[in-house]
Amino acid sequence: MDLDLTVDAVTLTEQLVNIESVSRGEQAIADAVEAALAAYPHLTVSRHGHTVVARTDLGRGERVVIAGHLDTVPVNDNLPARRQESAEGVLLHGLGTCDMKGGDAVILRLAATLPEPNRDVTFILYDAEEIEEQFNGLRLLAQRHPELMVADFAILMEPSNAVVEAGCQGTLRVDVRTTGERAHSARSWRGRNAIHGAAEVLRRLNEYDARRPVIDGLEYREGLNAVFIRGGVAGNVLPDECVVEVNFRFAPDRSEAEAEAYVRDFFDGFEVTLTDLAPGALPGLDVPAAKAFVEAVGGQVNPKFGWTDVARFTGLGVPAVNFGPGDPMLAHKQEEHVPVEHIERCEAQLRAWLTDGLTS
Amino acid sequence: MDLDLTVDAVTLTEQLVNIESVSRGEQAIADAVEAALAAYPHLTVSRHGHTVVARTDLGRGERVVIAGHLDTVPVNDNLPARRQESAEGVLLHGLGTCDMKGGDAVILRLAATLPEPNRDVTFILYDAEEIEEQFNGLRLLAQRHPELMVADFAILMEPSNAVVEAGCQGTLRVDVRTTGERAHSARSWRGRNAIHGAAEVLRRLNEYDARRPVIDGLEYREGLNAVFIRGGVAGNVLPDECVVEVNFRFAPDRSEAEAEAYVRDFFDGFEVTLTDLAPGALPGLDVPAAKAFVEAVGGQVNPKFGWTDVARFTGLGVPAVNFGPGDPMLAHKQEEHVPVEHIERCEAQLRAWLTDGLTS
Repeated sequence: MDLDLTVDAVTLTEQLVNIESVSRGEQAIADAVEAALAAYPHLTVSRHGHTVVARTDLGRGERVVIAGHLDTVPVNDNLPARRQESAEGVLLHGLGTCDMKGGDAVILRLAATLPEPNRDVTFILYDAEEIEEQFNGLRLLAQRHPELMVADFAILMEPSNAVVEAGCQGTLRVDVRTTGERAHSARSWRGRNAIHGAAEVLRRLNEYDARRPVIDGLEYREGLNAVFIRGGVAGNVLPDECVVEVNFRFAPDRSEAEAEAYVRDFFDGFEVTLTDLAPGALPGLDVPAAKAFVEAVGGQVNPKFGWTDVARFTGLGVPAVNFGPGDPMLAHKQEEHVPVEHIERCEAQLRAWLTDGLTS
Repeated sequence: MDLDLTVDAVTLTEQLVNIESVSRGEQAIADAVEAALAAYPHLTVSRHGHTVVARTDLGRGERVVIAGHLDTVPVNDNLPARRQESAEGVLLHGLGTCDMKGGDAVILRLAATLPEPNRDVTFILYDAEEIEEQFNGLRLLAQRHPELMVADFAILMEPSNAVVEAGCQGTLRVDVRTTGERAHSARSWRGRNAIHGAAEVLRRLNEYDARRPVIDGLEYREGLNAVFIRGGVAGNVLPDECVVEVNFRFAPDRSEAEAEAYVRDFFDGFEVTLTDLAPGALPGLDVPAAKAFVEAVGGQVNPKFGWTDVARFTGLGVPAVNFGPGDPMLAHKQEEHVPVEHIERCEAQLRAWLTDGLTS
């Protein structure tokens, strides 16, 4: 399928949405993106698996990365794209409209139409963001071609209601395990019920009081939640094990080690096994490139609660923010949609920022 | 395989154990049992599926049923049978030694060697006791040939340490469900966590105080236990449902309706769904046939905590007790075994009871 980068970003979003690209099935969309970008001689295009990188090389004093992922969560009877009038203006409905082909369309439009931006730009469109970390295209690019990730600043076009969301919270998962002794449930006094033992784990979770630290002027909000619970052997047996899987979302002023220590202390007395850990990212808004960007797009900044690849850039020493069309609350929902006004505004603001100071 | 009913009951137990008979695989053992019993002209033998019934018809004033199941739980590297010396005398190890081929051997020995007992006897050896109720051979016999279940008294040779265990507790299962609202775990304040909501369910279970009613001189002991717990949608989602499966073992002075009402009241405020209910059986020791039996075997009676087919006889109006070799705590365990002394004692006591008053 051919992509036409001369159409408006909303139409381009529709085209991208209609190329199905569930994680691990990004070949077609990556081929289309690569072919479309390769037509522009001001870009140096390279392909890495199903990740496409397009760079300007104008020798500017500053380089920024603008990145988006091409994959979506599984289809849920929500293709192809369709437009709908609403009280908030025209909405574009369909899988990936919000997360995040609206942002991808903006990236492609900027790449195609700005042969001489005021800053050098590395555009990255990558695969496998929605699945296990091991497949993540940005992760693999950073591993194999770290030189392509080098920048003074990075913008990830994850949905953020077309407002800058800075930093992101970290995420950690633990299994909290209670143990007991099996016994026939007809003679329960001979055993010790591990599920009953989990009452205290849940009691503590109910009493948890979320910390809301203010960092660089942004209020974060932590969260500690059981996401799974399981236990049981048979319908007539006292269970000897119960596992509560707990997810801790922590503000970026805690390190990974501090977050782990907090959770271990919180569940003191129980067996706690760490199963997953990804650091948060500090907003980093004191960096000049970030400051300038925030000012250019209107000055409003919100904290990012969810974990995004912003943390990957921060880990590489590149300050980064989320800035993209669409409401993150709609991501992964069947009724996912994006206001076309978001797409248009993001494009216009990024265009203004990348051309400011140039004589046209 | 041929069974020799002229050998002692312990050797016969070994022979029965070595005919593998996991539930739904009882053909071979039922064939062997049927053929062995059919050799004795004082018995009227009939076959119903893999259930074998052998009756005396002497026109005695009283008829008793003596019953045992032929099936076992799955093999667990515990065949064939083997004898072992121990501090408590010789033990016979192997699948089914305790539950309940020791009892079956006693039944077969009595059937073969007592052509003229003082009471008419209906010996029943049935299939599929260890699996879903729908397959239970005794249930099917009661349905299709209720005339073969008619008796003044019934003895079920389930393991009971060679002591009379009277009555049995009822069993009931409910799903106790908590609900919430899904939300991304990074923005948990937007949802309501159903697993956290189960804390109160588990708190009540921990505060449960078991009733211990005395019925016909026997102390029962109820139990209320979570046997399963499950909840969870994804590692980053607040779950909107949590289900605690609770098993109530209730003393036989409660009806099924009373037991259900008790549990619904206990979990007042939660959604409670009944999933399983089997009544208990009152000890019924005031019935003359039961009294005489208890006296004949030494007068000691314990309450039966687990549910057994005794309740099926009670439901048919036939007073019934458990009385068989082996420790019920060893049933279904890999290391299942039976003291040979139990087998010998059960056989001797039943033989004495069935011949008492006869001139030999």
